[in-house]
Amino acid sequence: MSQLDFWVSIGSTYSYLSVMRIDALARAAGVTYRWRPFNVRHVMIEQNNIPFKDKPIKTAYMWRDIERRAAGYGLSPQIPAPYPLAGLVLANQVAVLGAEEGWVGDYMRATYRRWFDEGQPAGEAPNLPDSLTEIGQDPDRVLAEAQSDRIEAALARVTEEAMALGVFGAPSFVVGGEVFWGDDRLEDALTWAGRH
Amino acid sequence: MSQLDFWVSIGSTYSYLSVMRIDALARAAGVTYRWRPFNVRHVMIEQNNIPFKDKPIKTAYMWRDIERRAAGYGLSPQIPAPYPLAGLVLANQVAVLGAEEGWVGDYMRATYRRWFDEGQPAGEAPNLPDSLTEIGQDPDRVLAEAQSDRIEAALARVTEEAMALGVFGAPSFVVGGEVFWGDDRLEDALTWAGRH
Repeated sequence: MSQLDFWVSIGSTYSYLSVMRIDALARAAGVTYRWRPFNVRHVMIEQNNIPFKDKPIKTAYMWRDIERRAAGYGLSPQIPAPYPLAGLVLANQVAVLGAEEGWVGDYMRATYRRWFDEGQPAGEAPNLPDSLTEIGQDPDRVLAEAQSDRIEAALARVTEEAMALGVFGAPSFVVGGEVFWGDDRLEDALTWAGRH
Repeated sequence: MSQLDFWVSIGSTYSYLSVMRIDALARAAGVTYRWRPFNVRHVMIEQNNIPFKDKPIKTAYMWRDIERRAAGYGLSPQIPAPYPLAGLVLANQVAVLGAEEGWVGDYMRATYRRWFDEGQPAGEAPNLPDSLTEIGQDPDRVLAEAQSDRIEAALARVTEEAMALGVFGAPSFVVGGEVFWGDDRLEDALTWAGRH
């Protein structure tokens, strides 16, 4: 049984589905996983991989596809959610701190729920402080620490690590060197983890 | 029960999986479908949607993903297949003629099998004449007719029709105005067709 690394980046739209699903699915599959927040925007700019900007037809499809799949999972997002996120970097700096301190999963679910279900952009007020308060973290302390040089460097480092593994988008699931990209590969990745 | 339109374009890599799968899956689901060959390259250039060119990491992932999924479906392609195809337009002109004359499905399976399983590019010799001969069509007649002004115009027309429906890539499955993009949405599209 391999461990699964969940490479996730607040700002990614399809990650909403994975953030909301992974905990129950991984538990059912008996697979342990780690949250690996990174800066997907940096990776995509670096690799000239710009899937939605200036592509209105593909963007409209993306929202409809998420809406249909969310309904199948019993989720009720308000589609489209605000996009893109101005606070992407800060949102993920907070996630990196949360990964260190053990509350990243709760933060991810809280901030994605506000972003997708309530239409509040992640990475800024009111979403960010309210999400932190909800999960029992002090917004003032977290926001100061998350914007420190140390966490800024940590986000850059983990983003380089993602690229070194072949991660080019979010969500991605990495199991023993195999990359699975997209919420629609979550089940495949869990099956792979169970077999290897 | 709705009819499903299978928008497919020779040149699309993931379409290999759908071409090889759709007949059995549609039959099992009791869904009737139509082959709608079109020129996906024209659509993607038109919409500035260039997923793989100059994106080596994403391209490497695409091949590995197809290889993994093909194995799960009992298919054994030689990965990577030759890509991109110089003969994309001709390959799809032949498909448009095949759709008129009723042999498009046999042609698609024959030419994709040679392209992916034997490493012979579609849309040129030996793949193209051998595929036509295999399915009982005369290559000389078909190649002359497929390159006529009439079929050239028909391919352009069906490609405009695809864009008007919101199709931006291949394979796509359209059921009653709903677009499902990607081989990994084939089952969803069939379920949708069964329900509506």
